[in-house]
Amino acid sequence: MSDVFVVGADLIKFGRYPDRTPFQLGAEATLLALDDAGLGIRDVGAIYAASTFNAASMMAQQILMQIGQTGIPCVNVSNACASGATAFREAVIAIKSGMYDVVVAVGAEKNPSGMLASGKSEGPPPEGLFGSGTMPALFAEAGMVHSSAYGTTIEQFAKVSVKNHHHSTMNPKAMYQRETPLEEVLASEMIAWPLTKLMCSVNVDGAAAAVLCSERKARELGLGRAVRVLGSALASDPWDARNGVMMNVNPVTRLAAASAYEMAGVGPGELDLVELHDCFATAELLHYENLGLCADGEAGALIDSGATALGGRIPVNVSGGLLSKGHPIGATGVANIVEVVMQLRGEAGRRQVQGARLGLAHVLGFGVGVGAAGVHILAKV
Amino acid sequence: MSDVFVVGADLIKFGRYPDRTPFQLGAEATLLALDDAGLGIRDVGAIYAASTFNAASMMAQQILMQIGQTGIPCVNVSNACASGATAFREAVIAIKSGMYDVVVAVGAEKNPSGMLASGKSEGPPPEGLFGSGTMPALFAEAGMVHSSAYGTTIEQFAKVSVKNHHHSTMNPKAMYQRETPLEEVLASEMIAWPLTKLMCSVNVDGAAAAVLCSERKARELGLGRAVRVLGSALASDPWDARNGVMMNVNPVTRLAAASAYEMAGVGPGELDLVELHDCFATAELLHYENLGLCADGEAGALIDSGATALGGRIPVNVSGGLLSKGHPIGATGVANIVEVVMQLRGEAGRRQVQGARLGLAHVLGFGVGVGAAGVHILAKV
Repeated sequence: MSDVFVVGADLIKFGRYPDRTPFQLGAEATLLALDDAGLGIRDVGAIYAASTFNAASMMAQQILMQIGQTGIPCVNVSNACASGATAFREAVIAIKSGMYDVVVAVGAEKNPSGMLASGKSEGPPPEGLFGSGTMPALFAEAGMVHSSAYGTTIEQFAKVSVKNHHHSTMNPKAMYQRETPLEEVLASEMIAWPLTKLMCSVNVDGAAAAVLCSERKARELGLGRAVRVLGSALASDPWDARNGVMMNVNPVTRLAAASAYEMAGVGPGELDLVELHDCFATAELLHYENLGLCADGEAGALIDSGATALGGRIPVNVSGGLLSKGHPIGATGVANIVEVVMQLRGEAGRRQVQGARLGLAHVLGFGVGVGAAGVHILAKV
Repeated sequence: MSDVFVVGADLIKFGRYPDRTPFQLGAEATLLALDDAGLGIRDVGAIYAASTFNAASMMAQQILMQIGQTGIPCVNVSNACASGATAFREAVIAIKSGMYDVVVAVGAEKNPSGMLASGKSEGPPPEGLFGSGTMPALFAEAGMVHSSAYGTTIEQFAKVSVKNHHHSTMNPKAMYQRETPLEEVLASEMIAWPLTKLMCSVNVDGAAAAVLCSERKARELGLGRAVRVLGSALASDPWDARNGVMMNVNPVTRLAAASAYEMAGVGPGELDLVELHDCFATAELLHYENLGLCADGEAGALIDSGATALGGRIPVNVSGGLLSKGHPIGATGVANIVEVVMQLRGEAGRRQVQGARLGLAHVLGFGVGVGAAGVHILAKV
């Protein structure tokens, strides 16, 4: 198996693009990432495109139509909120197979208006499968189960939003770039108790892309800014995942994390930063434990300690996260990998995690009663 | 790169399943293929699921929910009519990467009622991109361009339907299993000149699955019934594909075929059978030339000669093809590989191509102004 390197990574500013297609957004991100790599579309051996709402439209081909149709294999993947990580991981596998030297993974999404606001997933309503009707309710309930077991407070959940909004003030690509004090987070509109509006991720349009290559090609391009993919894991719900709501949210991430750590040969204590799937403020605390950043029950204490803020021991979501950078569903999994790549290169500007050498990117997607989690571990060369 | 083997392959009878979900159809095909391989779901390292209309529903996970949720990576792919070939090829790449020993590729589809009848593709209407409004019109026009250039007759196109319907009488899994004489084909309802209803593929529900494994695992299982994947190619439209209608239909298949032949190290003259994408009768003749079964302009003569009928020099679509076995969009690409596997094993019953040792499976998918073609070349071990 060839080692796999990321040699180009970029994203467009997340926001609202009513006059542009998701294909145009994906093409822009792809061109930015290729430019970052110093490569052109004719150097690309295959393209993997992720989208939750547009996968069936041959998005990879539509992106090539914007850039240049070179006839290369185009693969369109969909895996709910884990779509982007799935495309990236298929690109990793494609490089490892030896069949390509250079592969692009791109995620792009224009969210149907009101999709997240209504909490609707694909397909029929998930009532009775999740034990709750909407995504906000699912993650609210999972948070309350944690609160009940470990005494986690509403303020601790809300601090996640305060932190990630603060981080986003240093990210020019974030949808929102303003501070939200604790009082404002707690006082904003209640969506699903204890989740207020500022504790829910932002429904935005966006696109992100990465250029992956083989070791041979990376050496040819120069390893100076290359980042190595140490671990790449994708998991689906294990059988026992549906024995209760909290069990539904957590096991799939734990399974993916265990697999990624094993493949990478590193443990959570060695990480310098984490971009995780903070679709709701409760989710971030659950994932501290699911990803092994702290022991079970200690997530509340971890956010209180400031360890997961920029400047802390293990900064989490320095990009602003889904809560403030925004959550263009199919693009999110690529975007959080892009952030880790920028950080490992030392090119993250004001939000730079000093001396970052090892980072983890995580996403979690749900369909109707089923899920997917992706975990990637990347290292500075 | 590890060699890749198919050790299990099967499909459900194509037809109408108003009371079942596409996930149930996909699960049945997966169980049939696993049973064929003598393996269980716990032996499977990853699953690739193809669907045009259901990819966004996390179909792979929904299929596992029917069978057993083992937590394995689930990848959902969509590539219009090439979805099934794309899932199979991703499974090939996954085995080649060395990351898995056993991978399932499954295609399943319940077609939205009237989808093919109206000729609608995904997304906005393709008028002005294809130069014609519907899939029947696109392939009708491509046939007429061929007719104009080479004198191909309506009867020659119609003979494709006669042949494939005849073949389907020997396939218990085909939607239709009855003879359609030339007069009946020509006299059936006109859809888009010169394509009558019996010259258009059948909109059905269906599912097909294949179990792929590494050489190590294949040897462990015994190579007796194993089939080797010699060539695996996927192409998208090259840049010049849209300089006219005929150019739109043909170049993407030619590109995929050239790539598959090169990878396999064989030429079209060595093939013993071909399952190709006869979405319309005109398409089969075009693909004789696109796949190199005859020289350009000689497809009409080839069908006249009987060479592509069972018992001929190079039998094409002995399964009955999309025209009579049926075309469950996302499943089709896996189903035609399954047919080739059955033939190479000598297990195709009354439609067996005697002494078949090398076979090719082809699909062609179109979105709005873009396309994908998949070509796989398989060999008896």
